Amino acid sequence: MGVEERRQQLIGVALELFSRRSPDEVSIDEIASAAGISRPLVYHYFPGKLSLYEAALKRASDDLASRFTEPHEGPLGSRLLRVMRRFFDFVDEHGPGFSALMRGGPAVGSSTTNALIDSVRQAAYDQILAHLGIEDPPARLELVIRSWISLVESTALLWLDGRRVPRAELEVQLVHDFGALVAVSAAQDEELGALMRRVFKDEPGDGGPFGTLVTRLVSLAS
Amino acid sequence: MGVEERRQQLIGVALELFSRRSPDEVSIDEIASAAGISRPLVYHYFPGKLSLYEAALKRASDDLASRFTEPHEGPLGSRLLRVMRRFFDFVDEHGPGFSALMRGGPAVGSSTTNALIDSVRQAAYDQILAHLGIEDPPARLELVIRSWISLVESTALLWLDGRRVPRAELEVQLVHDFGALVAVSAAQDEELGALMRRVFKDEPGDGGPFGTLVTRLVSLAS
Repeated sequence: MGVEERRQQLIGVALELFSRRSPDEVSIDEIASAAGISRPLVYHYFPGKLSLYEAALKRASDDLASRFTEPHEGPLGSRLLRVMRRFFDFVDEHGPGFSALMRGGPAVGSSTTNALIDSVRQAAYDQILAHLGIEDPPARLELVIRSWISLVESTALLWLDGRRVPRAELEVQLVHDFGALVAVSAAQDEELGALMRRVFKDEPGDGGPFGTLVTRLVSLAS
Repeated sequence: MGVEERRQQLIGVALELFSRRSPDEVSIDEIASAAGISRPLVYHYFPGKLSLYEAALKRASDDLASRFTEPHEGPLGSRLLRVMRRFFDFVDEHGPGFSALMRGGPAVGSSTTNALIDSVRQAAYDQILAHLGIEDPPARLELVIRSWISLVESTALLWLDGRRVPRAELEVQLVHDFGALVAVSAAQDEELGALMRRVFKDEPGDGGPFGTLVTRLVSLAS
């Protein structure tokens, strides 16, 4: 194998191991053994476990960010629901590694790690703005979108801890949460209210998750 | 000063400094100077900066958890709003230290630090359950409450980054968010819906933040 090919293979093996168990528990010996090479050879390609971890995290981050891409077609709620499904696929595939990372994993405090996490959050934020068709959001809207992204992260972490609620239900719930949080902000702020009425004016009353939410809330309130 | 008195004084001085600037930037020399003692004397009471940081964080955590206590009287939304005000007071007083800690501060990965953060989250969770009058919550309700607590944290962090939205507005918004997130879950799950109808049946339609929210949402939708 060439140098780059070997590096990519090692990253793949490491990502697999770091995803399935807490990265703290994965040794370089184990990675070497899974890759079928010697421990010194691993160190030839990566100076230490942290650099291999960061490379694996970079691949996982790129993978996750790519799952946020969604055609600009159909009801907004349905688009968001498809993204939520792909997000939970990712969380499901990388459960223990995702938990360890987000709860303060082995490379916490590493500026590379923090920058990767932030880049994924930023990718999610940019995608949402693009789907809303908004380039320069007011501060209140930025806050709602970013805080919803963090709600998605924390909901996924809570789900991983025991999986006591079916993930399909949480995927729908998070889409509904987005609509509810935007509505709460829009109800408090006129500018945001007007903006959101414009964005959502073409949403179908039925046939999309946001329509379903409104129907259910009305029935709950009655 | 006696040993314990001196320790408490040092913790107070350190907390003040760790709150106003990122703890990474605060040196033992500076703490010694602010406390009016020598650097070696600081080390006599605390083996290093981490142990002093942890002691300061313990005091801040106890302070924050105590602010969650609220009499079981009046509309639930109003109780929650008073707690949100005290929470933002705390965030305001400890801004840079709070940000540094929650974004992965100097003592991240320290099990003491993580345990303190978790204990504050647990105190918030326990208080909310007590106010709802629920002892053994269904998994879906636990998830909503815990994810709302994390929404509060992330909203406070986003607020600290530029303070572009008045905090009073965010305090109300977070109370509304709580109502909205619970309603979204309750709309999806019959058991939770029935539970929430029982909890909220005595809430006033006006006069509380939840009533205001419903009024505003209805006006927004029309």
